Amino acid sequence: MAVYTEVSDEDIATFLGHYDVGTLVSMKGIAEGVQNSNYLLGTEKEDGSAQQFILTLYEAGTNSQELPFFLSLMDHLAAKKLPCPVPIKDKNGNALQNLNGRPAAMVSFLQGVSVRTPQPHHCEELGAALADLHLAAADFSMTRTNDLSLDGWIDLADDQLPRADRVRPDLPDIIRDELAHLKAAWPTLNALPRGIVHADLFPDNVFFKGQNLSGLIDFYFAATDILVYDIGVCLNAWCFEADGSFNVTKAGRLLAGYLSHRTLSDAELAALPLLARGAAMRFLLTRLHDWFATHDGALVRKKDPLEYLRKLRFHQAVTGPADYGL
Amino acid sequence: MAVYTEVSDEDIATFLGHYDVGTLVSMKGIAEGVQNSNYLLGTEKEDGSAQQFILTLYEAGTNSQELPFFLSLMDHLAAKKLPCPVPIKDKNGNALQNLNGRPAAMVSFLQGVSVRTPQPHHCEELGAALADLHLAAADFSMTRTNDLSLDGWIDLADDQLPRADRVRPDLPDIIRDELAHLKAAWPTLNALPRGIVHADLFPDNVFFKGQNLSGLIDFYFAATDILVYDIGVCLNAWCFEADGSFNVTKAGRLLAGYLSHRTLSDAELAALPLLARGAAMRFLLTRLHDWFATHDGALVRKKDPLEYLRKLRFHQAVTGPADYGL
Repeated sequence: MAVYTEVSDEDIATFLGHYDVGTLVSMKGIAEGVQNSNYLLGTEKEDGSAQQFILTLYEAGTNSQELPFFLSLMDHLAAKKLPCPVPIKDKNGNALQNLNGRPAAMVSFLQGVSVRTPQPHHCEELGAALADLHLAAADFSMTRTNDLSLDGWIDLADDQLPRADRVRPDLPDIIRDELAHLKAAWPTLNALPRGIVHADLFPDNVFFKGQNLSGLIDFYFAATDILVYDIGVCLNAWCFEADGSFNVTKAGRLLAGYLSHRTLSDAELAALPLLARGAAMRFLLTRLHDWFATHDGALVRKKDPLEYLRKLRFHQAVTGPADYGL
Repeated sequence: MAVYTEVSDEDIATFLGHYDVGTLVSMKGIAEGVQNSNYLLGTEKEDGSAQQFILTLYEAGTNSQELPFFLSLMDHLAAKKLPCPVPIKDKNGNALQNLNGRPAAMVSFLQGVSVRTPQPHHCEELGAALADLHLAAADFSMTRTNDLSLDGWIDLADDQLPRADRVRPDLPDIIRDELAHLKAAWPTLNALPRGIVHADLFPDNVFFKGQNLSGLIDFYFAATDILVYDIGVCLNAWCFEADGSFNVTKAGRLLAGYLSHRTLSDAELAALPLLARGAAMRFLLTRLHDWFATHDGALVRKKDPLEYLRKLRFHQAVTGPADYGL
């Protein structure tokens, strides 16, 4: 959302000197992501060729030991032609740097615009790209535990339950009951295909150029988990209207897009409502956390946790994958 | 500093449809300016040619009746080859638009990077460009009262004096004494050359590409005032080090740059210390205002008002233009 770290003239010049990208011709702090400082850099080589990059300084909230996982993943996916940012390597072959006392990395700039109100065809493109991501990552050798899966939700709930009633009186009971349900049902998912999930593929992390999907960004929640969980996240993030209603047309197109590139087993399809409930619970709990952690008027816009309670209610009432437009 | 207004997919598409700029291929909210929402737009025409623009949505703090002045001024200056943003006109010849219920305008994107720690050669380039600005605006037909000159400072002081002691116990007395001095001395300035001043030419409003000045931006404080006042602002903004010391080398180069493009009369030179005091007072008072108006942790970084008290102290001790390196 903002730029937390300012970079001195000398530091950025030294930094770019490590790369073969020419000289700096523009540098704009951009309002992207909520956690890190991001700059859009323009550079020019002596032959006049121009390039654009995103420079990220990873702020305090980032576990820097995990950065090699995220950068290697983007490298792997880009090599498989997934439209994701490519970490740029310096003259010594290193993508991870240090700038102003913070871990930093420069990645390629992706053209495209994120849509604020996705239309059905956007959802179909997204579904296909999500399947591409799952397929492209299938032979990625690194793994990362999803600390925002069931165990993480239980930990988050421990912190939020004592005060959740301030948001809505019956919210603690609802969360407690739902977590009990998820905890009991989760072992039934053990046999489902696992792999790399993006885990945060909201519309602002997806770019379109004209009608076509042109970029997937922000892999900093990516982890090893049940693949269908990612579809659950996207159903929550892409298929509800501003008035809270579920748009079954968008969901159907999203799933059709996914299925056009990767098949889903009957077990995966059957698990979809449960994973969509889990995904709704994840965002309900992190939004509750952010709600209480953010003072009024602060840098980050407060997002309504109850939006995800309403989504959770929808998924609780789902009787099978047909309710998602299949 | 941030993006306050989000623009819907339909609105930006409709907006760009009024222009002959091709289709949108990227859109990034950028952290520039403190008051308005700014986006960096990339567009592409059918022949593949790419362009970049800055889209500004003017937020509540802007007096929209003054926007035609600012846009016409940029138009005028750009036509005179001053490196400033050019307001882009739509197919009907209009630069000022309405977007998301706010006045909005699109201007050309200027390459270059603002320097955080200006060096003497930057100051010389700046001085020359400031003289160019004054000369280029000499035949600009519109005028605008500088509401942040003497009368404005008196009004600001009325609001800040009752609480300024919270910042420093003797601050109310210092401000009162200095304002009395400025008020008594100001009539001596009546005969000085007047014209368009930028009035806010801080390093973040000036771009350099390599060693050369490539852009002047943010004309939203521009007004009709004593030209030398602008030099006073720049001496304050460019020639003090982080430790508070005045860098006479930088000041000398700034003035030499200015003089290389526009001569200063003896009366203008003699008035420089007084106008530098006035400029220091202006930023001391507006920073005090912002200090009390901004709650902790808000979107805007709080800037230390006392930085300008220290600068004011320096100018109070100046005995003549030679102290500025002339």
